[in-house]
Amino acid sequence: MKEIILIGGGGHCKSVIDVIEHDGSFKIIGIVDKSNLIGTKVLGHEIIASDNDLSKLAKKHKYAIVSIGQIESPILRIQLYDTAIKAGFILPSIISPNAYVSKYAKLGSGTIIMNHAVVNANASIGDNCIVNTKALIEHDCSISNHCHISTNATINGGATIESGCFIGSNSTTKELAKITKNSFIKAGSLVV
Amino acid sequence: MKEIILIGGGGHCKSVIDVIEHDGSFKIIGIVDKSNLIGTKVLGHEIIASDNDLSKLAKKHKYAIVSIGQIESPILRIQLYDTAIKAGFILPSIISPNAYVSKYAKLGSGTIIMNHAVVNANASIGDNCIVNTKALIEHDCSISNHCHISTNATINGGATIESGCFIGSNSTTKELAKITKNSFIKAGSLVV
Amino acid sequence: MKEIILIGGGGHCKSVIDVIEHDGSFKIIGIVDKSNLIGTKVLGHEIIASDNDLSKLAKKHKYAIVSIGQIESPILRIQLYDTAIKAGFILPSIISPNAYVSKYAKLGSGTIIMNHAVVNANASIGDNCIVNTKALIEHDCSISNHCHISTNATINGGATIESGCFIGSNSTTKELAKITKNSFIKAGSLVV
Repeated sequence: MKEIILIGGGGHCKSVIDVIEHDGSFKIIGIVDKSNLIGTKVLGHEIIASDNDLSKLAKKHKYAIVSIGQIESPILRIQLYDTAIKAGFILPSIISPNAYVSKYAKLGSGTIIMNHAVVNANASIGDNCIVNTKALIEHDCSISNHCHISTNATINGGATIESGCFIGSNSTTKELAKITKNSFIKAGSLVV
Repeated sequence: MKEIILIGGGGHCKSVIDVIEHDGSFKIIGIVDKSNLIGTKVLGHEIIASDNDLSKLAKKHKYAIVSIGQIESPILRIQLYDTAIKAGFILPSIISPNAYVSKYAKLGSGTIIMNHAVVNANASIGDNCIVNTKALIEHDCSISNHCHISTNATINGGATIESGCFIGSNSTTKELAKITKNSFIKAGSLVV
Repeated sequence: MKEIILIGGGGHCKSVIDVIEHDGSFKIIGIVDKSNLIGTKVLGHEIIASDNDLSKLAKKHKYAIVSIGQIESPILRIQLYDTAIKAGFILPSIISPNAYVSKYAKLGSGTIIMNHAVVNANASIGDNCIVNTKALIEHDCSISNHCHISTNATINGGATIESGCFIGSNSTTKELAKITKNSFIKAGSLVV
C-alpha cells in the first residue's frame, strides 16, 4: 500500500484520518506538527516530526497531504502545501468512498473530498482544496487552488470561485456566482 | 439496454447525463435542442434533432426525459413533457444510484432523482419533477407534477407542494407546509 | 433475526420502519401506541399494544426503540425511554445503511441514525437521540442524551450539546458551539 504523511494534527486531521482509513488506498505513516507535540497521538497516529523535517521525510516517503483546517485565512495551508511540493512530496487527491465525484469532474493535487460530499459533472477543483463533509459542487463550477468549501455548503451550477476562498458552512451560492480571490463567506450566507 | 432521448442540452443536462450513465439502465441515444445547435455535443453526446422532430424520433425510440432546468417558470418543461407524451414517448422515472428512494415512496413519469437526494417513506412525487442533488423529501410529503426541488432543499414531513413549484436551493419547508401552485421559493428561504 | 418493538406510531415511525427494514438487522414485531389505535397499521406493521403493556411485552421480546418524534419537548421521548428500560428492554443503536458513522464515533443506547446522516470521527452521541435524515455531526462533537438533531442540520466540529435539545431542520452550529440543556433551536438558525 502507498504510504502517506499528514501535515497538521488538529481537529480537521481527525476527519482526514477517518476518510483515508475508510478509503484504504493509503497507509498513514505519521503526522507532522509543532515540535513540542512530537510523540503525542491523533486517533492512534503518532506525531513523528515537525514542519521543519519535511525535506528529510520526503527522502523516505513519497506522498503527503495538508491536514490542517482553514477558516480565517488560507496562508498556512498554502505555505505547508508549497513546502511539501518543494520538499519533493507528491500530494494526491483523496476522495471519501461515500462521496461522489463525477467522472466528468477534475480534482487538483492535494485536494480532499470528505464524507458525503458531491462534485458534479464538468466541475473543476484546483490544488490543495478541502471540499468538506456534505458540501456540494454543482455542474460546471470552477474552483481555484487553496479553497475550503465548508460543511454542507452548496455551490450551485457554473460558479467561479477564485483561489484562497473560504465558503462557510451551510452557505449557498447561486448559479453562475463569481467569488473573488481570498474571499471569506460566513456560515449560512446566501451569495447571489 | 434501453435507449433514451434527452430533451434539452443545457447545464442541467450535464447532471442528467452523469446520473443516467452512472445508473446504467439506459443508453443515451442523443439530445434534442434548438435546431442551430444540431451537431454540437454535451459531454460527448450529440444534439441530433430539434424539438420539432420529437414525433419522428418517437417512431424509432421508446424512452425520453426532459433534461432542461427550471428556475423562473415551469412552462417550458411542461410544454416539452406534453409534447413528448403526445409524440408517444414513455418518460421513465430515473434514480441516481447514490440517491435513496424508500420502497414506500412513489415517483411519477419523467421524474428524476439526482445524486445524493433522499425521498423518504410514504412520500409521493408527481410527473416531470426534478429532485435535485442532495434535496430531501421527508416522510408523507406530497409533491405534484412539474416541480423542481432544487439542490440541498429540505422538504420536511407531511408537506404538500402543488404543481409547477420551484423550491430554491438550500431552502427549508417546515412540517406540514402547504405550497400553492406555481410558487417560486427563493434560495435559502424558510417556509413555515 | 433479532426482533424489535417500536414505541410510537406517528410520522417519524414511518421513517424508522424504513431504516430498520432497509438495514435488515431487526425484524419489527409490532408498534406500541395509544390503546384506541390497537389493530390499525403503520406501513403494514400493526399497533399491537399500548404504552401500559411495555412490561408485559418485555417478557417476550428483547429489543425496543422509541419511534415517536420530538419537536416541542423531549419529555415524552424521555418517559417512554425510561419506561422501556425499566420494563427490561434493550434499546439498541440503529444506523441506516446509507448513513455514515465513523469507527471513531460512539453512539448511545436507543439512538437512531437516519438516512444519509453523517457522524464523523471522535464524535459521541448519548442515549435515545434522533440524528435525523441528512443531519451532520462533525468531528469531536459531544451530544448528550435525548436530543433530536433534525433533518439536514449541521453541527460543526467540537460542539457540545447538552441533554434534551432540539436542533431544528437545516440549522447550523459553528465550531465549538455550546448549547445548554433542553434548548430549542429553530429551523434554519445559525448558532455562533
